[in-house]
Amino acid sequence: MEIQRLGVALILSGPSGSGKSSISQEVMRRHPEVCFSISCTTRAPRGAERDGIDYYFLSRDAFEKKIAEDAFIEYAEVHGNFYGTLKSEVVDRVSQGIDVILDIDVQGAAKVRELCRKDALFKACAEFVFVAPPSHAELERRLRGRATDSEEVIQKRLYNSKLEISRWREYSYLLINDDFAGAVEKFNSLLLAFRMSTKRWKEDVNG
Amino acid sequence: MEIQRLGVALILSGPSGSGKSSISQEVMRRHPEVCFSISCTTRAPRGAERDGIDYYFLSRDAFEKKIAEDAFIEYAEVHGNFYGTLKSEVVDRVSQGIDVILDIDVQGAAKVRELCRKDALFKACAEFVFVAPPSHAELERRLRGRATDSEEVIQKRLYNSKLEISRWREYSYLLINDDFAGAVEKFNSLLLAFRMSTKRWKEDVNG
Repeated sequence: MEIQRLGVALILSGPSGSGKSSISQEVMRRHPEVCFSISCTTRAPRGAERDGIDYYFLSRDAFEKKIAEDAFIEYAEVHGNFYGTLKSEVVDRVSQGIDVILDIDVQGAAKVRELCRKDALFKACAEFVFVAPPSHAELERRLRGRATDSEEVIQKRLYNSKLEISRWREYSYLLINDDFAGAVEKFNSLLLAFRMSTKRWKEDVNG
Repeated sequence: MEIQRLGVALILSGPSGSGKSSISQEVMRRHPEVCFSISCTTRAPRGAERDGIDYYFLSRDAFEKKIAEDAFIEYAEVHGNFYGTLKSEVVDRVSQGIDVILDIDVQGAAKVRELCRKDALFKACAEFVFVAPPSHAELERRLRGRATDSEEVIQKRLYNSKLEISRWREYSYLLINDDFAGAVEKFNSLLLAFRMSTKRWKEDVNG
């Protein structure tokens, strides 16, 4: 028999330069059945960013309407722009057994953790993973490798990264990205392990 | 820096015919750094079984002396023979960051779960995995495939297996062994995931 289970809501945090986006993209390429939760933002699209793929780009009015409707799992204002995760990106999917990856910063993840205390579905589905670079020196090397950033931007990113990394203990799993292929294997293992977690299984085995 | 972590005490249960021994042997072949906890028994060695490799074969007196010394994590008497898991097979290893696999039946696993409530080391290290066959029909097929067993033995094994399988919810992870290669990948993923669990990490990251 096919056993019904809830999907995994995999909350993924990690500083800029941790490689979490490349890792999760590669794991999703291997598992096309896994969905990615697209965030909303009021900031303007950059470069090749597309609405409904990279973000849902909303006006400030539209975003505030969604706040009023309690449509967000978590949202925050950062440097004058709103960012948020819609319930509609996650709730129906995990209820139907579809796994969803949520790329959320440490503040947003803390809000989801709070939500888990009062919401049985989130408590059952959420798993918290932090991706860290192997060292601060390596993080600095990676951030400086993006030749386009000014020294000021690099220093600010490094400062923020250290703050984020200091909160890794809030997460259940820590993935140290020392090499890309290994990190992809580790992330893949986490996904497979979460799928085996009995707290998410609804039916009797061999019943 | 190298981050210090406690080892995983991976408690593996599953009925006769679930394939848990073959799966764990293959994963240990891939990870020679993982240890196997050798059980003690007062029953006589069978076939090619070797003392100190398959079991520690003890006299009843020697076993009872170890009980009196509180040397066991768990032990039980089954059909007039004692079986038990020595603390010395697990405690020092996990304290040093070495992962240990413990093949324990559902009764023994329940005792280890109880121990986790009062022992901080076990609470941090223990992970409970149940291996199940994909169906009762498939289990029966596998047990009958061992042409040497009498109908009575097969019926008894089937009955015991159903009893064991009914307790899968006591475990945190359920691994359904529908094909060997897939089951090895799943077990390997569990091991890698457990190694990433932050509850077992002692030092600061990037500190």
